[in-house]
Amino acid sequence: MAPDSKPPSVHTIDPYRLFDSRPVFSHVATSTGPTRIVATAGQVGADEHGKVPADIDEQIALAMRNLGRCLEAAGATPTDVFKLVYYIVDYDPNNRRHTKHVKAFLNGHRPATTLVPVPALAVPEYKFEIEAYAAVRQEPLRSVEVVVVGAGLSGLKTAYDLQQAGVSCVVVEARDRVGGKTWSVDPTGQGKFVDVGAAWINDTNQSKICDLAKFLNLELVVQKTEGNMVQEDLGGGIDVFEYGGTPKGLAEKDGVENLVFIRELFEKLCQELDIQDPVGTGGQFDKMTLEEWCKKETKSETAFATVTLWTRAMLGLEPREMSALYFLNYCKSGGGLLQMRSDFKHGGQHLRFIRGTQSMSIELAKLLTPGTVVLNSPVRRISQSPEGIYVSAGRGDFKCQRVVVSVPTPLYKEITFEPPLPEAKVEIGKNNVLGYTLKVLVMYSEPWWRKAGLVGAVMSFVGPITTCRDTSNDEKGEYSLTCFTNGDFGRKMSLLPQKERYNAILEHIKRMFGKYVAVQDPIAITEHEWSKDQWAQGCPCPASPPGIMTKYDRELRTAHGKVHFVGTETAYEWKGYMDGAVRSGERGAKEVIAALGKAKL
Amino acid sequence: MAPDSKPPSVHTIDPYRLFDSRPVFSHVATSTGPTRIVATAGQVGADEHGKVPADIDEQIALAMRNLGRCLEAAGATPTDVFKLVYYIVDYDPNNRRHTKHVKAFLNGHRPATTLVPVPALAVPEYKFEIEAYAAVRQEPLRSVEVVVVGAGLSGLKTAYDLQQAGVSCVVVEARDRVGGKTWSVDPTGQGKFVDVGAAWINDTNQSKICDLAKFLNLELVVQKTEGNMVQEDLGGGIDVFEYGGTPKGLAEKDGVENLVFIRELFEKLCQELDIQDPVGTGGQFDKMTLEEWCKKETKSETAFATVTLWTRAMLGLEPREMSALYFLNYCKSGGGLLQMRSDFKHGGQHLRFIRGTQSMSIELAKLLTPGTVVLNSPVRRISQSPEGIYVSAGRGDFKCQRVVVSVPTPLYKEITFEPPLPEAKVEIGKNNVLGYTLKVLVMYSEPWWRKAGLVGAVMSFVGPITTCRDTSNDEKGEYSLTCFTNGDFGRKMSLLPQKERYNAILEHIKRMFGKYVAVQDPIAITEHEWSKDQWAQGCPCPASPPGIMTKYDRELRTAHGKVHFVGTETAYEWKGYMDGAVRSGERGAKEVIAALGKAKL
Ligand SMILES: Cc1cc2nc3c(=O)[nH]c(=O)nc-3n(C[C@H](O)[C@H](O)[C@H](O)COP(=O)(O)OP(=O)(O)OC[C@H]3O[C@@H](n4cnc5c(N)ncnc54)[C@H](O)[C@@H]3O)c2cc1C
Ligand SMILES: Cc1cc2nc3c(=O)[nH]c(=O)nc-3n(C[C@H](O)[C@H](O)[C@H](O)COP(=O)(O)OP(=O)(O)OC[C@H]3O[C@@H](n4cnc5c(N)ncnc54)[C@H](O)[C@@H]3O)c2cc1C
Repeated sequence: MAPDSKPPSVHTIDPYRLFDSRPVFSHVATSTGPTRIVATAGQVGADEHGKVPADIDEQIALAMRNLGRCLEAAGATPTDVFKLVYYIVDYDPNNRRHTKHVKAFLNGHRPATTLVPVPALAVPEYKFEIEAYAAVRQEPLRSVEVVVVGAGLSGLKTAYDLQQAGVSCVVVEARDRVGGKTWSVDPTGQGKFVDVGAAWINDTNQSKICDLAKFLNLELVVQKTEGNMVQEDLGGGIDVFEYGGTPKGLAEKDGVENLVFIRELFEKLCQELDIQDPVGTGGQFDKMTLEEWCKKETKSETAFATVTLWTRAMLGLEPREMSALYFLNYCKSGGGLLQMRSDFKHGGQHLRFIRGTQSMSIELAKLLTPGTVVLNSPVRRISQSPEGIYVSAGRGDFKCQRVVVSVPTPLYKEITFEPPLPEAKVEIGKNNVLGYTLKVLVMYSEPWWRKAGLVGAVMSFVGPITTCRDTSNDEKGEYSLTCFTNGDFGRKMSLLPQKERYNAILEHIKRMFGKYVAVQDPIAITEHEWSKDQWAQGCPCPASPPGIMTKYDRELRTAHGKVHFVGTETAYEWKGYMDGAVRSGERGAKEVIAALGKAKL
Repeated sequence: MAPDSKPPSVHTIDPYRLFDSRPVFSHVATSTGPTRIVATAGQVGADEHGKVPADIDEQIALAMRNLGRCLEAAGATPTDVFKLVYYIVDYDPNNRRHTKHVKAFLNGHRPATTLVPVPALAVPEYKFEIEAYAAVRQEPLRSVEVVVVGAGLSGLKTAYDLQQAGVSCVVVEARDRVGGKTWSVDPTGQGKFVDVGAAWINDTNQSKICDLAKFLNLELVVQKTEGNMVQEDLGGGIDVFEYGGTPKGLAEKDGVENLVFIRELFEKLCQELDIQDPVGTGGQFDKMTLEEWCKKETKSETAFATVTLWTRAMLGLEPREMSALYFLNYCKSGGGLLQMRSDFKHGGQHLRFIRGTQSMSIELAKLLTPGTVVLNSPVRRISQSPEGIYVSAGRGDFKCQRVVVSVPTPLYKEITFEPPLPEAKVEIGKNNVLGYTLKVLVMYSEPWWRKAGLVGAVMSFVGPITTCRDTSNDEKGEYSLTCFTNGDFGRKMSLLPQKERYNAILEHIKRMFGKYVAVQDPIAITEHEWSKDQWAQGCPCPASPPGIMTKYDRELRTAHGKVHFVGTETAYEWKGYMDGAVRSGERGAKEVIAALGKAKL
């Protein structure tokens, strides 16, 4: 989705009677219209820990990636760059190693550049450094009643409800698209969408999201549940069991019983909680991690592997990383562990969107007053003052009476609040951890797994795939397996170059299905690493380690002066899910409408 | 005084998944809101004469000071900097000498930076170079009837009178505070103010400033005059005489008589002048310097030393630097030499302000329409055109019908006038010289000098202190000596590092008072070198060398088209003093009100 049809913020010029600078750079570049200047520090080939690869090509690639992050952080794109300066150690005019990287980065854009061979850089290991100056178009200060920060489902729903109540608002989004953690891409360009973010809903207890889908007239497809599921046991043993049932023939003595024991105990405990008051009804579970809880209840490795599979699949985290209370309450918020894990009617994974889940956000955005959504515009400052609230964002500033922040709590730190956020919000943001969940979407020309009566799903205690599901849209002739790699498995995968990661996933598919059927070659592979995405920083939902809920859970949803907070993790029901996001948006809109003294919806 | 509560003009970002750049820099910095870009040349460690210290640390310190001056000249502060680039010769990654200087300069602000080791810089001596890019917030073009340039006493009084007459105006000031050459600082943070600029007034013949002080309800304190004054003779002999009297026992034969002779002759000649027409009534004295005049009248060294003490104490200059007419007229403008030099009733140094003289400007500014004073906003261009006058300043541009320039004449050159200033104004600005007057304010826990019956005043022919006065506020338990070092004495002191300068002053205090009483250690020392301050460039009042008055004095106060000129040096009475500043402001306002055809005050 193009942010707008305005002229570009940078114009490049090839002046008469200068040597031809194509295709690499332009002799002149200018900003056009009112712009904001973005300057980066010299970016080098050092990773987030400061580690520098010895290989110069890798250094250059890393420097370019860092540069991209810097620009994105400031709401700038490569086409906004008007000047680049390279500093190169051991420069060889006959082997300009940086050119191909820079060309790929700029993708046809040609800013003014200067190349400076230098004897050394700040640190002896650095051999390449690049700095950029960009100009980002600025809109004049806009006055509205409410600014909503973030155009995910929660933010868009807030805005929609506000506008229905006659409240003027804008939605200011950092990314170049709406939808947040719902993102549907079309890898083959044939209208066959896959969801690299959220995919599933149901049409019973997820009433809010389901109502929205119906209201927007979006076509749904039922998740396939017929056939056998492949299991990979701790020792690596591979077997099948009926989808929706219980694994069988596990290596551990009494493995199946242990698995059933922990599942039933957990389900019972989680059902005892009151989601409006988890700390009051289960505070003792906030004193320990989920791992500690599990190991207190059973010595069974299978039981622990099972609990681990849940937290990986549901939060992208390991049981050691969250308080037992957090996970109990998380499950209760979705009606209980069993309901959440289920793909049947009432389960968490019952229905999918033919055009992908992002279609909800895209359609919802279309119902807003034109000009409501401002893309490519990270909010960086929210200043409350007696004359109003000033919101500073990538494409311009806003003055308003109320703000609704819909970004995940760990991203609060990216925004400067004035006055500063209260301790509770700061600590929630700082301590809650965002998991690693990666969906590798493998597209095939036919659903070969069905030939052997397989449902296309797997669960593995060995990894790298944790679970996998058939996400085909048969009507469209679209066939795919969605392979999740999460928690520690995923983090290990994340260290590999994409190609090797894809290979590891394909290998695992072969290992699990190959016993039963001939595994075909894919026609497309797609992924999005949410944990490397600065506007998500992980997914699907931040979880609290022990102690945090006890101290701060009550303040998760409280307003900070005239700034309100929504987002799926603030929901009581279906926290972490799209349904929770929509619910939180409704709450946020109600709070603001009441505060502004406007008529209720 | 904070310039405004708007968001800062530069925002820095620590992007997700880049290595930690604290505490030295940020990976990204952006301008926010409408801004003006300020770029500096690479600044090196060269002083105003191009001299480069051999020591690298000194070079870096000097480069940083030069950078500070550049930014200030453009109305930018270090927090407005979004990018810094260092170029370093013989760079040693294990010994980053610049870091501590840059950190001190930025004081917690972290712009994007690039460090470039280089084999050499433009000149072989240069080892360090730093360039900055800053963004300064711009207000949209504002239309007012009058723009007053400078928020010293003359400018603020002009604005006050204009607004009282119903004329809309702004006061555009280069500094981050009002008051110009009145500046009251609180070195111990206990509300005990000392005046690093102007201090004294009287309540009889300085009627204008006194009326203002009364109108603003400001508390005054009478200058102490009881006790003995210490004198230091040409040979270094130290003696005492009654304050307000005549030195005694001078080394030169007939020294006292010679002193009295020149004092009486000068007083007589100055009283013969008409301050409305000094050239018509004393034109012959504009053909010689004051030194030439003195040496024509007497061969006495004591007499010349006495004349020198006057010009140093009153103008921070030597008798060779000004025309005799200038000084005669200057004294006549304050009622005569004796009255000006006196600390008694009717004298120039009779009363002080408990909260310091800046309190007048601060209080006067509060009486202006909110938003009138724009700080941190040097005026750089005044363009008269048929549709109006455009004034370009650091924080934004103005369109108006009249301009009142209140900056000292030697600072006219800092502003581009369109059409250009007439020859007279240019030559006055170019030729008038601003003296070196430094007040070193030494605070003590008790007034130890009084124990020996001393009034706390000295006069010295030897230096570095020229004169000194007790500037205690006994009611506040605040005790201080204000030591003046001026003219050649002061210029020599100015070459020393501050610590050595302070030591020289303390040594001199010991030498002069130590003969009579035990000299105590100070608790605080304060100074401001006005001659290094680009918005003063010297003090207290520019003086004319021979010939300038004859040619141009009539045109000192004439308007240039619709641009009017005020400032203390344009006053007839108490030229160079705060009283003169207020008088000139009244005149300026009257001129403009008449020109605009508005009702008189
Ligand atoms: C891989 C994956 C699988 C999932 N599977 C499911 C599923 O099957 N079913 C289900 O119901 N849920 C699922 N989820 C969870 C679901 O996606 C989220 O619960 C939901 O989308 C969250 O919506 P939100 O509005 O609360 O937050 P987000 O979607 O994160 O929206 C926040 C928005 O704020 C923007 N933003 C961040 N910082 C700033 C800033 N400084 N300025 C401006 N904008 C900013 C972000 O770009 C984003 O658009 C999944 C998530 C992922 C990632
Ligand atoms: C050390 C010292 C001791 C003194 N002692 C006494 C005393 O005891 N008694 C007494 O009566 N007087 C004394 N004076 C003199 C007195 O301070 C001045 O006469 C008076 O303050 C001058 O006021 P002014 O408005 O004419 O000029 P200034 O105070 O100089 O005001 C001019 C203003 O213009 C600003 N400016 C300059 N250039 C620009 C630009 N380009 N754009 C925008 N703004 C600009 C300056 O920052 C300043 O604020 C003393 C002065 C000094 C420095």
